[in-house]
Amino acid sequence: MTSSILDIANRRKTVRIFSKNPLDLTIVRVVLEAACQAPSGANVQPWRFMIITSTHIKKKVRKICEQGEKTFYSHVKGDLKEWLLKRGFDWKKPFLEEAPVLLLVLSEARAPYSTQSVWLAIGYILLMLEELGLGTVPYTPSDTQALQEAMKIPEEYRVEAVLPLGVSKDAKRKEPRLSVDSVTYLNRWGQKFSLK
Amino acid sequence: MTSSILDIANRRKTVRIFSKNPLDLTIVRVVLEAACQAPSGANVQPWRFMIITSTHIKKKVRKICEQGEKTFYSHVKGDLKEWLLKRGFDWKKPFLEEAPVLLLVLSEARAPYSTQSVWLAIGYILLMLEELGLGTVPYTPSDTQALQEAMKIPEEYRVEAVLPLGVSKDAKRKEPRLSVDSVTYLNRWGQKFSLK
Repeated sequence: MTSSILDIANRRKTVRIFSKNPLDLTIVRVVLEAACQAPSGANVQPWRFMIITSTHIKKKVRKICEQGEKTFYSHVKGDLKEWLLKRGFDWKKPFLEEAPVLLLVLSEARAPYSTQSVWLAIGYILLMLEELGLGTVPYTPSDTQALQEAMKIPEEYRVEAVLPLGVSKDAKRKEPRLSVDSVTYLNRWGQKFSLK
Repeated sequence: MTSSILDIANRRKTVRIFSKNPLDLTIVRVVLEAACQAPSGANVQPWRFMIITSTHIKKKVRKICEQGEKTFYSHVKGDLKEWLLKRGFDWKKPFLEEAPVLLLVLSEARAPYSTQSVWLAIGYILLMLEELGLGTVPYTPSDTQALQEAMKIPEEYRVEAVLPLGVSKDAKRKEPRLSVDSVTYLNRWGQKFSLK
């Protein structure tokens, strides 16, 4: 069985370092065309997008997000803290300024299954970006409220994610994934699914 | 710019009527292989899947879900009620019994950004299904707790969606979508994004 999407999904890894070359917005538009075809609760299509190309605004987004991350990192504990430290993650988010384009992904808060619908569409976006030779990290700001206010986004909408878009210059390897067998059961919880 | 994913996304529509022919589980496995490649919060990969092929269990899932829908439909109001009525939707979910396979999609409740990560992976699943000639509806049960108990799913996991899988026999047309221009702003909220 051949699947181009499986190839793209296998190839895709998260990217945090980008080439600074400007990005043709035609590509961003095509990516959003696919996203807009996703299904959504009651077909409300609760997604809204803000494309940020302005250096000044990217700098502002970075500053606000890093402020939120400083607070988050001063409180984080346990497994998550260990996971973050081991990978060298900290409050710094330079990709928010360095990527040629930021894509803010918002949801209409009152729509049915609004967050679910928007993240489903983000799945479409990630595969599209990979197919078109671009990378991203689906970054979720720790303090979405501060970003929302600074960007004058009406209260009816929520910031779901900020996706820096650009050509990858990130040498980091893809994080390993669990196998299908280890996360799938057949008919009953605990009953292994294996075709072998 | 050509994109196979854009073609697949454009073509894909939600399907609620399925051919009753049995489904080769090899296809389901390939679909899940793609899903398992999705990124997730701290790479926890909070998705779990249950593949239901048993007629008896599908019947049980249908019964439990329809019970929840009866309660939901007796309370629904406003725009959502109107939207549902106009499309002939009611509490009946025959696809939960008629589709050859059900895919229960679960999330590990305590994982960071667990629902978001799982729905992103559902985005991958929908595109994979379309590419491989299968359809689905990302059905969200109104009473996930009842389903969880009946299926003996541990409390650490949450039911996110039930996807009936099969070959479409649904003649219903795709619901129309909003244009990219109408949901996208450039740099500032309210500032139109248009390349023309």
